Amino acid sequence: MTRLKMGMVGGGIGSFIGDVHRKAASIDGMIDLVCGAFSSSEEKSIASAEALGIPKKRAYKSFEEMILEEAKLPQEERMDFVSIVTPNHMHFPPAKMALEHGFHVICDKPMTLTLDEATTLKQVVNSSNKVFALTHNYTGYPMIKQAKAMISKGDLGTIRKVNAQYLQGWLATAVEKTGQKQAAWRVDPKRSGIGGALGDIGTHAENLIEYVTGMQISELAADLSAFGDGRTLDDDGNILLRFENGAKGTLSFSQIATGEENNLGIRVYGTKGSVEWYQENPNELTVRWLDQPKQIYTPGGNGSYPESSEYVRIPAGHPEGYLEGFATIYRSFAKELSQIKKGESPSTVRDFPTVDDGVRGMKFIYAAVESSKNNASWTKI
Amino acid sequence: MTRLKMGMVGGGIGSFIGDVHRKAASIDGMIDLVCGAFSSSEEKSIASAEALGIPKKRAYKSFEEMILEEAKLPQEERMDFVSIVTPNHMHFPPAKMALEHGFHVICDKPMTLTLDEATTLKQVVNSSNKVFALTHNYTGYPMIKQAKAMISKGDLGTIRKVNAQYLQGWLATAVEKTGQKQAAWRVDPKRSGIGGALGDIGTHAENLIEYVTGMQISELAADLSAFGDGRTLDDDGNILLRFENGAKGTLSFSQIATGEENNLGIRVYGTKGSVEWYQENPNELTVRWLDQPKQIYTPGGNGSYPESSEYVRIPAGHPEGYLEGFATIYRSFAKELSQIKKGESPSTVRDFPTVDDGVRGMKFIYAAVESSKNNASWTKI
Amino acid sequence: MTRLKMGMVGGGIGSFIGDVHRKAASIDGMIDLVCGAFSSSEEKSIASAEALGIPKKRAYKSFEEMILEEAKLPQEERMDFVSIVTPNHMHFPPAKMALEHGFHVICDKPMTLTLDEATTLKQVVNSSNKVFALTHNYTGYPMIKQAKAMISKGDLGTIRKVNAQYLQGWLATAVEKTGQKQAAWRVDPKRSGIGGALGDIGTHAENLIEYVTGMQISELAADLSAFGDGRTLDDDGNILLRFENGAKGTLSFSQIATGEENNLGIRVYGTKGSVEWYQENPNELTVRWLDQPKQIYTPGGNGSYPESSEYVRIPAGHPEGYLEGFATIYRSFAKELSQIKKGESPSTVRDFPTVDDGVRGMKFIYAAVESSKNNASWTKI
Amino acid sequence: MTRLKMGMVGGGIGSFIGDVHRKAASIDGMIDLVCGAFSSSEEKSIASAEALGIPKKRAYKSFEEMILEEAKLPQEERMDFVSIVTPNHMHFPPAKMALEHGFHVICDKPMTLTLDEATTLKQVVNSSNKVFALTHNYTGYPMIKQAKAMISKGDLGTIRKVNAQYLQGWLATAVEKTGQKQAAWRVDPKRSGIGGALGDIGTHAENLIEYVTGMQISELAADLSAFGDGRTLDDDGNILLRFENGAKGTLSFSQIATGEENNLGIRVYGTKGSVEWYQENPNELTVRWLDQPKQIYTPGGNGSYPESSEYVRIPAGHPEGYLEGFATIYRSFAKELSQIKKGESPSTVRDFPTVDDGVRGMKFIYAAVESSKNNASWTKI
Repeated sequence: MTRLKMGMVGGGIGSFIGDVHRKAASIDGMIDLVCGAFSSSEEKSIASAEALGIPKKRAYKSFEEMILEEAKLPQEERMDFVSIVTPNHMHFPPAKMALEHGFHVICDKPMTLTLDEATTLKQVVNSSNKVFALTHNYTGYPMIKQAKAMISKGDLGTIRKVNAQYLQGWLATAVEKTGQKQAAWRVDPKRSGIGGALGDIGTHAENLIEYVTGMQISELAADLSAFGDGRTLDDDGNILLRFENGAKGTLSFSQIATGEENNLGIRVYGTKGSVEWYQENPNELTVRWLDQPKQIYTPGGNGSYPESSEYVRIPAGHPEGYLEGFATIYRSFAKELSQIKKGESPSTVRDFPTVDDGVRGMKFIYAAVESSKNNASWTKI
Repeated sequence: MTRLKMGMVGGGIGSFIGDVHRKAASIDGMIDLVCGAFSSSEEKSIASAEALGIPKKRAYKSFEEMILEEAKLPQEERMDFVSIVTPNHMHFPPAKMALEHGFHVICDKPMTLTLDEATTLKQVVNSSNKVFALTHNYTGYPMIKQAKAMISKGDLGTIRKVNAQYLQGWLATAVEKTGQKQAAWRVDPKRSGIGGALGDIGTHAENLIEYVTGMQISELAADLSAFGDGRTLDDDGNILLRFENGAKGTLSFSQIATGEENNLGIRVYGTKGSVEWYQENPNELTVRWLDQPKQIYTPGGNGSYPESSEYVRIPAGHPEGYLEGFATIYRSFAKELSQIKKGESPSTVRDFPTVDDGVRGMKFIYAAVESSKNNASWTKI
Repeated sequence: MTRLKMGMVGGGIGSFIGDVHRKAASIDGMIDLVCGAFSSSEEKSIASAEALGIPKKRAYKSFEEMILEEAKLPQEERMDFVSIVTPNHMHFPPAKMALEHGFHVICDKPMTLTLDEATTLKQVVNSSNKVFALTHNYTGYPMIKQAKAMISKGDLGTIRKVNAQYLQGWLATAVEKTGQKQAAWRVDPKRSGIGGALGDIGTHAENLIEYVTGMQISELAADLSAFGDGRTLDDDGNILLRFENGAKGTLSFSQIATGEENNLGIRVYGTKGSVEWYQENPNELTVRWLDQPKQIYTPGGNGSYPESSEYVRIPAGHPEGYLEGFATIYRSFAKELSQIKKGESPSTVRDFPTVDDGVRGMKFIYAAVESSKNNASWTKI
Repeated sequence: MTRLKMGMVGGGIGSFIGDVHRKAASIDGMIDLVCGAFSSSEEKSIASAEALGIPKKRAYKSFEEMILEEAKLPQEERMDFVSIVTPNHMHFPPAKMALEHGFHVICDKPMTLTLDEATTLKQVVNSSNKVFALTHNYTGYPMIKQAKAMISKGDLGTIRKVNAQYLQGWLATAVEKTGQKQAAWRVDPKRSGIGGALGDIGTHAENLIEYVTGMQISELAADLSAFGDGRTLDDDGNILLRFENGAKGTLSFSQIATGEENNLGIRVYGTKGSVEWYQENPNELTVRWLDQPKQIYTPGGNGSYPESSEYVRIPAGHPEGYLEGFATIYRSFAKELSQIKKGESPSTVRDFPTVDDGVRGMKFIYAAVESSKNNASWTKI
């Protein structure tokens, strides 16, 4: 195995999501971080490189410089792909440029600042012949793979009802006014786009729903709120969902749900059975049946499907967490890149979120905002 | 203490809710069942009386007969109040007649078949000088009392978000076509009214929300469904909620949520803290705070408020259940009747659901049905 | 059905366990409390009767008086059985006298103050032709019945390991010195016998283990402690268990386990499967299998055996609690008494703990105390 | 930061624990795997190196070769430390040789095959001036750090009772006869030593108990069993514990606990409070108090102590798992090595299990086996 070389945009020391991406990329031993434009401040970018054990010369002062300079390096030395971990408004520019300069891209979500950017990016990806992955990391959890497999095989029958939630409380007070950087950009439309919590966590829930069920939301009725004093972007929302196949549901998300940490959860009810899962205890999947006792599935545990077990790194009962789920996105992305590098044709089924998921997420944001402006009237995605 | 004497309408042997009412009335040793019109079949009514240890002469063939005959008995012998445990369409007639003949009434929910009946009944109650209680039994759980007290004292700050659910799966298949009586009347508009699951369990959730938060739902947007083949009444619904104070929320209920038993739950988020409770494990109240660790309150356990502890019958750690919560409604009702009997003035705060809750529940049903007909448009309650 | 008439020894107003017995006896509508010697203080006994709605003439000043006076009443009026709810030292005298005067007896646990009393009582019971029941109430929980049935049918294979615990924290401080009556008699050898927590809760766990598994503990090695300052009776214990069939296990109990409420629990491991149950959330039975996912059984829920479901009063998902489990002992006892009254021969399988369980419990106490004196050496029961 | 270079003994592709060590070493980006003697088969060692992206020349055919050859490399190139992930009988030889040739060592548990080896190894470590770490990985969980900190600060008062369990079911059937390698060496005294499950998982529990409480087990009474047909080593055990300070407790472990996955758990009761933790859901620490409601602490969540939070990699609510706990051992080990490399004096408190923990674990095994041979008589550790 030849290890892949990663360049990073954003993620200077102290950032939350940059560090998550680095750790996730490391776990499976397939990827080495070799360079980065870690910060818009050159000084900070260099300091970050130093702390990460990366030679100073590969600490770039901008993503443009990184892409241009790396492209000049011999193939065995230059980065294979770019990981983009900046705030939303800085996703599209480096993604587009990297793809156009021959680099694969893995990017944090939501994919872009605007829907226009998203559709443009899709065209760029399609014409680039490069791989683009979006880190909707929650789809990497084994129990989510198990739920998806059970639904896809028809174990649960026809799906009729979906309830999803994504509840956080960290914006319950005005932390954005306290110098907290994570909060500051998330409540700022210039950096976040038209969705607040909607874009930050609502899209995760939307992606999870569609991933697990294999169904598309056809229309929605969204009641978004900005409870925080002076906030222009939503920090809470309640949404009615209708699916193409006639199923219905709800999605409730919040960043002002006091005391909640990262409570993403989903329940899916079919004619024969149902599944229930919560991210904070991700190694349990509750499955209910018409006439059998409730079951608890665990990663690699009794009854697990191969579609789930192949994503489990350690024996049943040894809990995997957020970083491992995230790492699964990186691993699947890396496997595809390795196949391409070896000249093999990659598998037709892409086992990670793609630019299509990214466009879908942006359409979801736009539909929800529009619906909410129209007093929660039904709006097609 | 003089024990109170109860007459029952409905609840023949084999009925679900009749037996629940009898057990709930028994637990605290304040009430004796003395007579009943247990069934529209005289034979069955007599057989039920016999099985219950009630003399044959007090097994009546109709509620009319029971009310008229009991009224003739000397006061120390005749029933003090009527318990109505029939399907919805048979709530109003006996309730009205009993009140008009000088008997107190305790009645199952939803209060009546129609909203008109409900408003009429309210007038009857008000002009009767008798006590009317409605068995929204879930408000009897100690941890619900605790949550209500914490919110009412302001512990959680201003309430901003409410998520409630009431999920059952017993109508996931067409059990109403298998001779199951419980199912048969619930899917029949003539006996249930215009709400199906909405009336049967949705009103419980609505009542719980308003009871716990002390806030009123001002408007709602409801998307009701009848998934079951040939059903005309809803068996599932998803509702957006808006409250008078600006709080928002969701209510999702279902009787086709495969595998769910009786999963009533509520989460309430305030500016300072939040509470979470599920009926299937009712002896835990999860409380989250802005800056303190999550707490688990238990009935009579450390930190419980008197407003909650006074409803606990046994020491902390000895779980109370559905029947005890139900019994609490009966006990509070009985206490008020005892005070009246003794000539004392009853406490001004009525500690059980009243005719006002009943009217509110019917308005909720009507608003939800209307909203759903108008494609989930916002409808005032 | 003719209702049965109960006389009570002990249980004056304010007592914990007397009230529990009364409520448990009431729930199923088969038993009426008609008389009592509620307290050794005549005044208190009369006040208790009054509060309970019992005529003053049937409030006796001693159990002796009650037994003698009731025996003189006509059969249709006099009590059918005596319920004994006094501290341990006052179990044997009224039990013996009642049986000898023709009354059935239901008695709290542990059965007697001493092992001698227990063996004597067994002889009395055997020669009396009367029914004696012991309220090891935890065996009344439906999920315990389910576990017992699964083991007895061989679902779990051969049992090899048992872990049980009964953890309370209410004696973690010296509450017996604060005037707390419940604590005072429990730490007093004259009223409790040679076991402290061992007798009070350890015997419950011992009974539960043998009831669920159908196996007898053959020998034990007990390390008992009296952590509380000045206590002479144990308030904590850890015991190794060996069973007749070669299985092994542990039993850990405590009343100084700070913060624990009433945490009785059991795990039983067989060659094919295992069960796990906790009293504080009694409506879940966790079942694990060699090669199937973990299951959660619920009372009356999918997959429940008839041996369990027949003890469920309300549909699955409507939690039953401590009082209902306790009531099941009373109900089974009452059913047997009714059969006897009608002249039917009672079922050969007695569905409640008997004098044999009581003797067994006393032998367990004596063996544990002896073992502990000998530095936890193996001691036969 | 200069990254550290790791050489591995054992852990050929397909091994369980070798892969765990590699992933754990990778997560924090401080360590690179540079060489290995991955298998006693040279061919397999080379294949493993290839799969891991390690140059063939640094795939050694034995640990002796690896140590000798690496020692010859220039300092900036050669490995800094050896990670030993072989079965128990192959811990001591490479550990001793590596230390004697100037390499630091991190080693899987139990530390050695025999107690003699353990005491010898301690001398080797002490005279080597090198760092030795033992991967009792469960002490790396943040909630274990939190529990330890709370106890050490006296929050729980004086500790009086400890209950620990480590329950697995994977040896419930004779998997060692099916060609399962993990099982084969674990039931073989030549490769495992005198303890079976006792050494494999019992020592983890012992280490966890002493780590969390800060107390030493003074004596124990162990009842070990070999339930599996033909097994000579224990596969199950129940142990009474006594601590130096007068506390008492139990430890029950098993590998024949059918259906259990990796159920390590601990409860510690003090005079003021208690803690409870289970490895399968490691991100919750339950804390009970004398007079406050039960609390649930989470990694980095409200109320977490710095002693715990510094080990948390991602915000509260983003679960960390087994690999992260394991990685914490590696990270602390790597930090100390980095300090040494930089010429700094390392912190006096070693934040990872050391050779002393290893000796202690071996003494525990020997004491338990001796006690069990003497019919569970009390034996000093």
